[in-house]
Amino acid sequence: MKNYILKIDCDDEKGLIYRVSDIIFKYGLNIVSNHEFVNHDSRRFFFRSEISGDENLDIKGFCGNLSAVLPNNANINFKEKRKKDIIILATKETHCLGDLLIKHYSGELNANIKAVIANHDVLRDLVEKFGINYHFISSENISREAHEEKILAVMEKYSFDYAILAKYMRILSPNFVARHKDKIINIHHSFLPAFIGANPYKQAYERGVKIIGATAHFVTDNLDEGPIIAQDVTIVNHTMTWQEMRESGRYVEKNVLSKAIDLVLDDRIFIFENKTVIF
Amino acid sequence: MKNYILKIDCDDEKGLIYRVSDIIFKYGLNIVSNHEFVNHDSRRFFFRSEISGDENLDIKGFCGNLSAVLPNNANINFKEKRKKDIIILATKETHCLGDLLIKHYSGELNANIKAVIANHDVLRDLVEKFGINYHFISSENISREAHEEKILAVMEKYSFDYAILAKYMRILSPNFVARHKDKIINIHHSFLPAFIGANPYKQAYERGVKIIGATAHFVTDNLDEGPIIAQDVTIVNHTMTWQEMRESGRYVEKNVLSKAIDLVLDDRIFIFENKTVIF
Amino acid sequence: MKNYILKIDCDDEKGLIYRVSDIIFKYGLNIVSNHEFVNHDSRRFFFRSEISGDENLDIKGFCGNLSAVLPNNANINFKEKRKKDIIILATKETHCLGDLLIKHYSGELNANIKAVIANHDVLRDLVEKFGINYHFISSENISREAHEEKILAVMEKYSFDYAILAKYMRILSPNFVARHKDKIINIHHSFLPAFIGANPYKQAYERGVKIIGATAHFVTDNLDEGPIIAQDVTIVNHTMTWQEMRESGRYVEKNVLSKAIDLVLDDRIFIFENKTVIF
Amino acid sequence: MKNYILKIDCDDEKGLIYRVSDIIFKYGLNIVSNHEFVNHDSRRFFFRSEISGDENLDIKGFCGNLSAVLPNNANINFKEKRKKDIIILATKETHCLGDLLIKHYSGELNANIKAVIANHDVLRDLVEKFGINYHFISSENISREAHEEKILAVMEKYSFDYAILAKYMRILSPNFVARHKDKIINIHHSFLPAFIGANPYKQAYERGVKIIGATAHFVTDNLDEGPIIAQDVTIVNHTMTWQEMRESGRYVEKNVLSKAIDLVLDDRIFIFENKTVIF
Repeated sequence: MKNYILKIDCDDEKGLIYRVSDIIFKYGLNIVSNHEFVNHDSRRFFFRSEISGDENLDIKGFCGNLSAVLPNNANINFKEKRKKDIIILATKETHCLGDLLIKHYSGELNANIKAVIANHDVLRDLVEKFGINYHFISSENISREAHEEKILAVMEKYSFDYAILAKYMRILSPNFVARHKDKIINIHHSFLPAFIGANPYKQAYERGVKIIGATAHFVTDNLDEGPIIAQDVTIVNHTMTWQEMRESGRYVEKNVLSKAIDLVLDDRIFIFENKTVIF
Repeated sequence: MKNYILKIDCDDEKGLIYRVSDIIFKYGLNIVSNHEFVNHDSRRFFFRSEISGDENLDIKGFCGNLSAVLPNNANINFKEKRKKDIIILATKETHCLGDLLIKHYSGELNANIKAVIANHDVLRDLVEKFGINYHFISSENISREAHEEKILAVMEKYSFDYAILAKYMRILSPNFVARHKDKIINIHHSFLPAFIGANPYKQAYERGVKIIGATAHFVTDNLDEGPIIAQDVTIVNHTMTWQEMRESGRYVEKNVLSKAIDLVLDDRIFIFENKTVIF
Repeated sequence: MKNYILKIDCDDEKGLIYRVSDIIFKYGLNIVSNHEFVNHDSRRFFFRSEISGDENLDIKGFCGNLSAVLPNNANINFKEKRKKDIIILATKETHCLGDLLIKHYSGELNANIKAVIANHDVLRDLVEKFGINYHFISSENISREAHEEKILAVMEKYSFDYAILAKYMRILSPNFVARHKDKIINIHHSFLPAFIGANPYKQAYERGVKIIGATAHFVTDNLDEGPIIAQDVTIVNHTMTWQEMRESGRYVEKNVLSKAIDLVLDDRIFIFENKTVIF
Repeated sequence: MKNYILKIDCDDEKGLIYRVSDIIFKYGLNIVSNHEFVNHDSRRFFFRSEISGDENLDIKGFCGNLSAVLPNNANINFKEKRKKDIIILATKETHCLGDLLIKHYSGELNANIKAVIANHDVLRDLVEKFGINYHFISSENISREAHEEKILAVMEKYSFDYAILAKYMRILSPNFVARHKDKIINIHHSFLPAFIGANPYKQAYERGVKIIGATAHFVTDNLDEGPIIAQDVTIVNHTMTWQEMRESGRYVEKNVLSKAIDLVLDDRIFIFENKTVIF
C-alpha cells in the first residue's frame, strides 16, 4: 500500500464531489482525509485528498478518468506522497536557517536540504557543521543579472522542489522568479502589507505600532506582494528600540517560515488569484 | 430554493463520501459547502454539508435513502437551515448577557432569545430594556432540587433549542442536565482543565500564571468536564490583583461564549467521546 | 485621604527620580504605584505616579516645587484621580457602542457617557434604552464644515474629557481635530498601517492575509495616522468572505476600543512624537 | 563607565524610592532604566535599576549605604552586568537544545553554554558539532540518588549561574533542587497547572482542549509547581492526533524556554511567595 496526494481545482459545477469520489471508489482506493472548498466569488472548486491504495496503481489511467468527468480547465495533480527536496538561500542571519538545519538534522522536516546558497560568506561554518553543501556567491562587483545567473546555475545542478529564502536579503528579478514559478518561498519580516520594503522593524518602531509580525509568502514579480501562506504576530511596546523589536521578531520569523514550509512540503496549498487556499 | 444542513456520523468505511454524494446528486441538490473528517483512533466518520435544493424536498425519503447505504449505527441529521431559539440562564453579571442582548438586538445573533432566567433579581432592568421575558427564580430557602424544578417548569413553557449559561453561578444536577442533554452550553471562567471549581481567577492569581483564559463547553454530569467548544486566553502579569485578572478575563469570557454559541447555532458541532468535532 | 495622578515628561537628566521623589516625600505623600521610562533616542523622561495623600493638599504649591527642580520644558500634570466624562460619536453599527453602553450601565466603565451623537438615526432606540442623551445630526445636504459645526455646537453643550469615535464613519477635518487636540479616540477596523482608508476588510480579503486586526488611536490631522494606543488581531482563512472577516473583526474592534478607552480614562498615556508611552 | 544591575526587595514603606534614588544620586550614578512594583497584598516592594557609573565604584560601600536606609529584611543585589554561564540538561529531544545552540553560536544568547549533560546518548553528535562539552550520564541500573550524584559531580566541575532543563525528562529529587535553589529552569510541555505529569499532549488530546501551551518555571521540590516565568499557547483542533499536538507544541516549548532564559539571564526576575515579579 502506498499513500498518494490528489489535488484538483476547477470551475465549480454540481456533482463534482460525486464524480471524483465515484472514480476513487471504482479504483478501490481509500480516502484517508479529504478537504474541499468552493470560492463562491470566483465559482472555483478546490479539492485535496490523501489516498491510500495499491502501489502499482495506474496513475495515468486514474488521471485520465478524472479528466474525462471534470471541467476542461481542471488542474489535476496526483502524485505519490514523498519527501521533498529543497534549496535554501540566505544572507547572514542564522535564526531561520538554523531552525531549518536543526529540524532537518532531527528528521522533523519533511524535506532533504540539498544545498544552501548565500551572498555573504558568514554562514559556511554553520551549514557545513551539518554536512550540507554550501555555496557562497558574492554579489560584489557584478550586475544583479550576472549574480542571479550564477545562483541559477548552481541551483540547476540540484534537483529540487522548492527554494526557501531564509532571510535572503536581495530582491529577485522577474526573470529569476519566472524560472521557478510558484516554487520560491520567502519570509518577510513584517505583517504584510504593512511595512513593505527595507527595515520594517525600524518602520514599525517609527510608526509606534503595538504589534509586529512576519509573513511567509510565495515570491512573485511584485516585491512583497505574492500569495501569503502564513502570518503571525508578537506584542511590542514603547520601551523597545527597533533593534529589540527585531530581536523579538526573530521568533516570529522563524516560526512562520517553518510552519509555511511544512504546509508547502505536505502539498496543502493551492495558489489562485494571488491568494492561497490551504487545507 | 431552500438551504438545508446535513450532518452524518457513523463508523468509517470505504466509499462513504461516494455513497452520500451519490444520493445528494440523484436528488438534484447542490452542495454549498462540505466538510468531512475521520477520527482514525475511533474509526469514526463525520460529515457536514450545507445543501441548497427544492423547498418541497422529500426529507424523509432522502434520509431513508441515506440510511440504506450507511452503516447501521449512523446518526443522520438533515434539517432545514433556520434561526434557533434559546433561553439564557444568568446570575448577576452583565458582560456575557449584555453582549448577547446587543448582538440579538442588532440581528447579529442567529437566534431568538425567548427568555432570561436568573437566580438573583439584579438583571431584570437590563433584560426588560430589550423587551425580553425575564424570570427571577430565587434559590433561597429551597432545596437545589426544588429550585431546579421551578427553572425547568419555566423553561418548558418555551420551545427552545439551546440553554445558554451566561455566567449562571450554580451547579446543575445530573437530573437537570439529563433533561436537556447536549443542549446546555456553559462559559467557565478558566482555561480548562486548569482551575476547576470556585473562583478560578483567585486560583490563577495564587498560582502566578502568566496567561488566563475561558472555556465554553457543553454541560454534562461532571462539573466543568463536558465537551469543550471554544477557548481563548489573555496575558496577565505580576502587577495584577485577582480582581484585575477577573476584569481582564471578562473580555475573554464574553468572546469565547459568543463564538461558541455561533458554532452551536450554525449546527457546526458533533459531540463524540466527550469531545467536539467542529466544522 | 485622596488619590492623585502625577504625570511628568521632560528632557532626561541625571537625578530626576531623586528630585521628584524628594518632593513627594517632603509633602508626606505615599506612592501607590510608580512608572518611569526614558526614551534614549529622544532623551525624554516619562514619569507617572499614583499617589495618596491629604485631601486638602496644596496642589499648586506642590506643582511649583516640582517645576522648580525639573527642566524648563517639563510638562507637569497633577490631578485628583476621578471618573471622566465622555461623548461618543457613532454612525450605524452597534457592536462598539453597545459594548460601551453595557459597561457603562454596569459601572465597569471609568466614565460617564454624557451623550451619543450620530450622523444617522438608527441608534436612537438603543441609546435611549439606557437613558443617555442622543443627538442625530444628519450630514445630508450640508457641507462637511457645516455638519461639523453642528456637532461641535452640541459637544460644547457638554463638559467632557474625551470624545470616542465608536465606528463614526466620517473623516474629521483638521479644524475639528484642532478644537479637541489629543481628546479624540478612534477605532480603525484594520491592523494599521495596513489597509488605510475605506473598507479594510475588503482590502484584507483581496490581499489574502491570514490575520486581520483593529487599531485604536488618537485622531490627528492625518487620516489613520495618529498615535496608536492599542491593537489586536484575529486569525482568518481562505474560507471566509470579506463580510465574514468583518463579522469576525467586530470582536477585535470592540475589545481594542474598550481597552484603549480604559487606558485613556486612567490617565496612563503620554503622547510624544506621534507615538504613545503607556504605563 | 560600567553597567550595573541593582535589585532590591523589602517590606514596603513610605519614601523607599526617595531613599534609594538619593544614594544613587550621591554616588554620581546614572539610572539607565528603572522599575519598581509594590505587591499590596504582601506589602512587599520590588525595585530593579540598570545603572551606569564609574568602573571602580565601591560596590561594598554603596550596598552598605543602601542597607542603612532600607528595612531590615531587605534583599540587596548589586552586581556588574555580565554574561552568565549556564549548563543544559537534556534527554533526547533536539528542538529546545538546538534552539539554544543556534542562539549561542550566533551570539544571541546572553550566556556561555559550559556543558550539556544528558541521560541518553543521542545528543552527543549535535552538541559536539558546536564544540560544547557533552556528558552522557546513564540512569540505567543505578538508583535515582546515585544518578543525581553523578550529575551533580559533573556540574560542580563547572562554575555556572543557571542550569537549564531543555526537555530533561527525569524528575529531580528535593536534594538536587536544594543544591541549586532558584538556579534551575525547566520547560514543561503544558499550560500549567493543566496536565501536570506524564505526556501532557496525550492528556490534552483526550480532554479535547482547543488550545495547548508550554510553561517555563523555576524548579522546586513540588513537581511542576515552581514559580512560573513564561507561558505561551497555540491553537489545536479535532483533526490533530496527540502526536501532531506534540509537534505543534514544540514551537511553543522552544520559544517559551528561550524567552524565559532571556529574562533570567538579564536579571529581570524576583521570586517571591512561589511567584515571579518580572521587570
